Amino acid sequence: MPVIITLTTDFGARDPYAGVMKGVILGIAPEARIVDITHEVPPFDTEAATFAVLQALPYFPPDTIHLVVVDPEVGTRRRALAAAGRRARFVGPDNGVLAPLLDADGPARVFDISQSPLLPEARSSTFHGRDVFAPAAAHLAAGISLERLGQPIDTPTAARTSGPERRDDGWHGRVVHVDRFGNLITNLDTRHAVELAALRVEGMTLPLANAYADIAKGTVGALLGSAGHIEVFLREGSAANALRAGIGTPVLGVIV
Amino acid sequence: MPVIITLTTDFGARDPYAGVMKGVILGIAPEARIVDITHEVPPFDTEAATFAVLQALPYFPPDTIHLVVVDPEVGTRRRALAAAGRRARFVGPDNGVLAPLLDADGPARVFDISQSPLLPEARSSTFHGRDVFAPAAAHLAAGISLERLGQPIDTPTAARTSGPERRDDGWHGRVVHVDRFGNLITNLDTRHAVELAALRVEGMTLPLANAYADIAKGTVGALLGSAGHIEVFLREGSAANALRAGIGTPVLGVIV
Amino acid sequence: MPVIITLTTDFGARDPYAGVMKGVILGIAPEARIVDITHEVPPFDTEAATFAVLQALPYFPPDTIHLVVVDPEVGTRRRALAAAGRRARFVGPDNGVLAPLLDADGPARVFDISQSPLLPEARSSTFHGRDVFAPAAAHLAAGISLERLGQPIDTPTAARTSGPERRDDGWHGRVVHVDRFGNLITNLDTRHAVELAALRVEGMTLPLANAYADIAKGTVGALLGSAGHIEVFLREGSAANALRAGIGTPVLGVIV
Repeated sequence: MPVIITLTTDFGARDPYAGVMKGVILGIAPEARIVDITHEVPPFDTEAATFAVLQALPYFPPDTIHLVVVDPEVGTRRRALAAAGRRARFVGPDNGVLAPLLDADGPARVFDISQSPLLPEARSSTFHGRDVFAPAAAHLAAGISLERLGQPIDTPTAARTSGPERRDDGWHGRVVHVDRFGNLITNLDTRHAVELAALRVEGMTLPLANAYADIAKGTVGALLGSAGHIEVFLREGSAANALRAGIGTPVLGVIV
Repeated sequence: MPVIITLTTDFGARDPYAGVMKGVILGIAPEARIVDITHEVPPFDTEAATFAVLQALPYFPPDTIHLVVVDPEVGTRRRALAAAGRRARFVGPDNGVLAPLLDADGPARVFDISQSPLLPEARSSTFHGRDVFAPAAAHLAAGISLERLGQPIDTPTAARTSGPERRDDGWHGRVVHVDRFGNLITNLDTRHAVELAALRVEGMTLPLANAYADIAKGTVGALLGSAGHIEVFLREGSAANALRAGIGTPVLGVIV
Repeated sequence: MPVIITLTTDFGARDPYAGVMKGVILGIAPEARIVDITHEVPPFDTEAATFAVLQALPYFPPDTIHLVVVDPEVGTRRRALAAAGRRARFVGPDNGVLAPLLDADGPARVFDISQSPLLPEARSSTFHGRDVFAPAAAHLAAGISLERLGQPIDTPTAARTSGPERRDDGWHGRVVHVDRFGNLITNLDTRHAVELAALRVEGMTLPLANAYADIAKGTVGALLGSAGHIEVFLREGSAANALRAGIGTPVLGVIV
């Protein structure tokens, strides 16, 4: 069965960069199946990239290779990583974008591939998606082992941001993503949801609903979304527009 | 020959939702070929989704599975459908998005798959594209029959909007889509075109041209477009901007 | 090994046009691997399409077919072409979009496929991507020779724009592309870079750096980018916004 490589980048759709990476991959691993997660990560936003891949992780077959290229330090000495967790494999820069994915996937083996003899020696200083990460993912898909590709390391660089914080009045979190429908996705997830009675945001207190349709049209509600995160929604409308809220807006999970 | 599954959704490109559906599909039907029609359907606009798939229908090989997920009632008791017509197969919510596709493809067998034992019992209330429709399409691609997947029903829910209306002065229609070039695509199609001498829109009367190039640059014209619909265009410019027209703008097909 | 067909168009993501072309291709060449370069070429901008494919060319395996559809004269008597160069093959309208690609890929054999008996006789006047170019590329992928597909011609139509010009004070070029990060990509490339000490743009003189990270955050710099073109960048920001510059902005390569 051909190996799947997913792509998550901040390259957008206007430029040929994602297509170029696919050309590199298919030159090395002609049978690989390539699936775009998104190329619309906000430029340099490693946290948003991590969040997108986290949502996809449980729904891909075992051994899928998740290639993540959001790389503001390209051209510096930041390391390039390849790793294998319990179910999935990962390739990307060592800037915090991979660490939460490795945590989510269970105990991981992590390798520094920055100096890999299997990767092109001639590298641009600006596009390691093409020159380092795509060839690395393709070699894995073609059957090369992590051990041959790089040197084992202990700990990848941690994510840049921290999770919600428990205080006396509940779980303090924030909006980490606004989806296309204007839903405000928070960093409060299934682990916090079991304790919560309601969500407070922008002065409103919203009891947790079970489905969008539980709430009257034009009304704001909150529920545990399909990715396991608590989100704020406006039935058949945009909560982001209605509340003038967005990434970073603080939320408070009110405890039962 | 591997089966093709097309995807048409209102999920956009920023979120991982379309990629997640592809992960689910490839886990069940690893050989399926997945083709995006569009993920930029305006949120909740079932008519626009139908229109996009209608344009693609004649150009895909027989037995292609068209998966359409525009699903404002997700989480309610609206039914989930799978169907086979003369050439193609279809999967999507029973909210009117599929009915015109089944009409276009000829006599159809339609099945309610809402309670299918082959689909995951644990379902989110917000993302049936992932939890119901993608697995259903993948099972069909992997060779499962419609009969095993669901229960036959007589009639799917009809589309929400109606077609053009014949009155004394001609065919009254409207703009149903604005494409990227600013062309105004109407719901007057080949069936009406044979009777028509001209199109009236925003106070202008436009004779029907044969090609964009029949009209001088900077001039507005009308023709029977490549999808079999009459459209209003501005040669190498945007008719939508020039006429300040858009979805819903009324048009009148003037009869010979 | 299946043949790769890349797609570069100005069709955007809202319309089903690119998906329709893929349906046509897979009907003729079910094993073809299809890779999107970009569908976000500005409408009718043949130069931007050429530039996107030029960046991808060296990174795809031999015999890849690059299908380019930016076709403002669709419906006129402009020719349709298929061609083979040293490594790659090309299909598209004869409007200048292919000529620089053929130059880059080395000595080419070029064929007029406008009247090919292998292509559908019934053609729309507005969508030759679907009716001419996609079937032509698919026939090539399925093993049909260029000789069977069309008639040899000597010279394709030249590109609409010319390259940089050498004057007393240096190489006069211009910005030809703004990427998603706001980097200003110029038409000065590796051939000019060897002679240059600095780049002058919007009154600033920028020495050539080696990597984005060589420049302090918030500062504007210039370097030879990953596609072999000199580009102007703002470290972790948008040079296009900061300089209010864009496509067409003149630049001067100052000679050592």
